[in-house]
Amino acid sequence: MNMRNLRDLLTHELKDLYSAEQQILIALPKMIEAVSSKELREGLKKHMEETKEQVSRLELISENMNSSLWGETCRGMEGIIKEGEKILGMKADPALKDAAIIGAAQRVEHYEMASYGCAVTYARTIDLDDVADLLQKTLDEEGEANKTLTGIAEGGLFTEGVNEKAAE
Amino acid sequence: MNMRNLRDLLTHELKDLYSAEQQILIALPKMIEAVSSKELREGLKKHMEETKEQVSRLELISENMNSSLWGETCRGMEGIIKEGEKILGMKADPALKDAAIIGAAQRVEHYEMASYGCAVTYARTIDLDDVADLLQKTLDEEGEANKTLTGIAEGGLFTEGVNEKAAE
Repeated sequence: MNMRNLRDLLTHELKDLYSAEQQILIALPKMIEAVSSKELREGLKKHMEETKEQVSRLELISENMNSSLWGETCRGMEGIIKEGEKILGMKADPALKDAAIIGAAQRVEHYEMASYGCAVTYARTIDLDDVADLLQKTLDEEGEANKTLTGIAEGGLFTEGVNEKAAE
Repeated sequence: MNMRNLRDLLTHELKDLYSAEQQILIALPKMIEAVSSKELREGLKKHMEETKEQVSRLELISENMNSSLWGETCRGMEGIIKEGEKILGMKADPALKDAAIIGAAQRVEHYEMASYGCAVTYARTIDLDDVADLLQKTLDEEGEANKTLTGIAEGGLFTEGVNEKAAE
């Protein structure tokens, strides 16, 4: 890998994120299928739609920057999803399994928060403000998705909380 | 994998974290050696010491819970570190490489924030408050380490900021 400047690093980061989002689009339907809580299922479905939008945003950015999104495999997301698959295959009470799936999903969200956070900083530093604004929108969505998952686990408005059920 | 209750899920999470921390203890010295910014090097060295303390905390928890910390390999951290190694091997200006290393380190921190966050919630739900307090201490440290890295990248007190330098 050879990098000349922050624009190269940003381009690399966008490729990494594009690969991560593609992997998430494959993994999310399996997670949605495995959950029992209706609230959690709806939350993950909503995030699936957001993820499609985030992919479109990355494609718009790459057009604006005249750079490719292909050529990287996000090894971090690969590992996180491999770990999540172990959770999907586990034998457990439905509420307990939901709690574990929330944990797997929060690892995905946090990875993305770190990556989008860096990408926003790079873009802002080299005055690509339109790019930074688009990336910030996704970063905010990831943060919100993570909060929603915490809310469901700790006891949201409509449930007594997945973790409480799993403790029984 | 077979899980009966939230205590089993917590035990699994602690094994995953123990594996993650061990991997970080191997990866951090390589990162410290590769950075150029004195502030970043000091920040990572401080976090190396914290990480050793966090490992001791996990060992104390496992004694208290009478459970083993062995038997899991954290695939998520494995992937994140694999990605970080690519960054360490890249050819780039020192300030640019520092910016990329900060990105790699923030992925590590975020993964840990997600995992420790879940572990705190599990422990609190099943009334293992001493365990939850110890885990919360580590969670706070990970959050602080992440903020320190953001500060160094965006322009800390003592530098003009690694990312600004890399944009030149």
